[in-house]
Amino acid sequence: MSEQAGMDRMDEAQWQAVCRGVPPADEAAAKAARARLDTLTKPLHSLGNVEPLLVRLAASTTQVCPQLEHRVVLLAAADHGVAAEGVSAYPQAVTAQMVLNFLAGGAAINALAAAAGARITVVDAGVTADLPEHPQLRRLNIRRGSGNIAREPAMQRGEALAALSAGEALVAEASQRGLDVLIPAEMGIANTTPTAALTSLFTGAPPAETVGRGTGIDKVGLDHKRSVVAQALHRCAHLDAQRDPLAVLCELGGLEIAVLAGAIVGAAARRIPVLLDGYITTGAALVAAAMAPNVRAHLLAGHRSAEPGHALALAHLGLTGEAGTGPLLQLDLRLGEGSGAALALPVLVAATRLMRDMATFEQAGVSDRDDT
Amino acid sequence: MSEQAGMDRMDEAQWQAVCRGVPPADEAAAKAARARLDTLTKPLHSLGNVEPLLVRLAASTTQVCPQLEHRVVLLAAADHGVAAEGVSAYPQAVTAQMVLNFLAGGAAINALAAAAGARITVVDAGVTADLPEHPQLRRLNIRRGSGNIAREPAMQRGEALAALSAGEALVAEASQRGLDVLIPAEMGIANTTPTAALTSLFTGAPPAETVGRGTGIDKVGLDHKRSVVAQALHRCAHLDAQRDPLAVLCELGGLEIAVLAGAIVGAAARRIPVLLDGYITTGAALVAAAMAPNVRAHLLAGHRSAEPGHALALAHLGLTGEAGTGPLLQLDLRLGEGSGAALALPVLVAATRLMRDMATFEQAGVSDRDDT
Repeated sequence: MSEQAGMDRMDEAQWQAVCRGVPPADEAAAKAARARLDTLTKPLHSLGNVEPLLVRLAASTTQVCPQLEHRVVLLAAADHGVAAEGVSAYPQAVTAQMVLNFLAGGAAINALAAAAGARITVVDAGVTADLPEHPQLRRLNIRRGSGNIAREPAMQRGEALAALSAGEALVAEASQRGLDVLIPAEMGIANTTPTAALTSLFTGAPPAETVGRGTGIDKVGLDHKRSVVAQALHRCAHLDAQRDPLAVLCELGGLEIAVLAGAIVGAAARRIPVLLDGYITTGAALVAAAMAPNVRAHLLAGHRSAEPGHALALAHLGLTGEAGTGPLLQLDLRLGEGSGAALALPVLVAATRLMRDMATFEQAGVSDRDDT
Repeated sequence: MSEQAGMDRMDEAQWQAVCRGVPPADEAAAKAARARLDTLTKPLHSLGNVEPLLVRLAASTTQVCPQLEHRVVLLAAADHGVAAEGVSAYPQAVTAQMVLNFLAGGAAINALAAAAGARITVVDAGVTADLPEHPQLRRLNIRRGSGNIAREPAMQRGEALAALSAGEALVAEASQRGLDVLIPAEMGIANTTPTAALTSLFTGAPPAETVGRGTGIDKVGLDHKRSVVAQALHRCAHLDAQRDPLAVLCELGGLEIAVLAGAIVGAAARRIPVLLDGYITTGAALVAAAMAPNVRAHLLAGHRSAEPGHALALAHLGLTGEAGTGPLLQLDLRLGEGSGAALALPVLVAATRLMRDMATFEQAGVSDRDDT
């Protein structure tokens, strides 16, 4: 596919139709998965939170033993006008430098995706700097960098629809080659700032709870970042997040966040489970779930990051762990790039092997507790 | 090697010499690992608890980038006389039935070890029932089942030394084929009971804190199990756990626990990191660390199980997470067999890939924060 083929921008009605097409959890598959788990040669429920995870996977895919052979990291990069407010510990040039690092195979996500047997698609969703031609780089050419959300919208409605459409199209294309689990991943200096704004708007939590240190700003920087997010939210006081999530994305989002929201909807529409990474991809999932509520049934939490707002965003999506669908890892990662989800991916894949390969009590001739 | 070749029982002086030979953490390697982590293309410390994990791995192995290619699950099974007290939800026959399930490849550990690329060695450390000949089964022929610790010692001093020696010899043998990380694993109906007793004795915590529901006993069963552990501890009030850990093992242990304690010492002596599974293997590590304090430097926690005493035992070994060396997974697993460690193993292996494969800021031409 050439750079933009298949990425025709949907209009708002077309996008809403995609969102309405996302199927809910398949309760029959969930029930069958629960029943199978109880026949396997292990004490009842002894796999702890792995059991509801496998039930959720069945409900998403409709398969009791989905195998997740084809694993894709969709790594979207973009710049953020709000970087001009001094909210990040790193210069904006690092976004483009890290894209080159991804393409050269030197970043954390490269090592972790290789270890997990996942392929990576690198997408320039709106990097400001000039990036050289590279056969592995997908360019969307929507715009270079989003607006400074402290002062203006991140993007226009048409740009947001273009980014959502592109995310959906990238998933459609990936599914042609095989796609059993999607890891949305991101790079974008300053992108915890729009994520905190989105999380505040969707969850109702104040910036004091949604703004963290990102890549490592100090206490003064943290206070400043909170005031920047508060300024952005002040601009958006008139918005109804549930009725017009597209407007929220335009005001407070970012181009990589929009592409990933589109990809998440696109995966959910195909019953492809989405393994979320950290705060930014969970922010994209907040947008996706506001546009298409059934998306939640297809989300899994790879990890819980060190960003304080991440737990709030996960809870808003029902990924808190109370129902056993909480994050697989809690290692205080704060790297992004899909790294936490890629680190968790082998755990998810191994869990599916339990469902497929374990013997039942009857097959193995093992006494169940009822036989005592 | 034939069934018992190479497993000559050490005498107490020989065993103590093995214990004294366990090397401490290599601080130079730890320092080099820390230095390398800070040059890699990621925000400083953004890999969270993975960073101290990699430092610990370096300190254990003396290598900054150990590769953990050869992964072994040493799965020791034994029966426990204390099962006669009705402390388990399952009949004792299940121990032998599960050994056959391991040999047939139908248990959780088979699926998880395969997913993690680990080989399994199944050891009959003292199963009561007759087990058929099987080319993959290692028999130790020390004794069939331990004594009922509520009323009598689990084993005699010579039997404990035989089991420790066998564990050490099994590691020696495995290291001939290649052994870069050891997962001690166990099967033994009722074996959370001796583990709770060992944990109480080594940590000083009362049975109310160290006894849990194991494979799933009810509240009445839990109270009874606590009284059984209290009875066992009462028999041992005269013991000094730190001065004579071998006596503690004899009074309160189990044959698989003794074999695994020997294996853990044997691995640590060779600077082979040990990835602990759940409560029982951590109990074996308590014994090993009491015999050879330097063992602690070679321990990693695969997960924290649903058994309440497990966190106490991990904390006693310094695996609490405060120094970033806490459990990799916290999924409320309570299956044993090495399953939690095997599920965590791919996370550990992927972490080593970060150290090996990531580019440095200099190599990738990425601006570090100091360049801003």
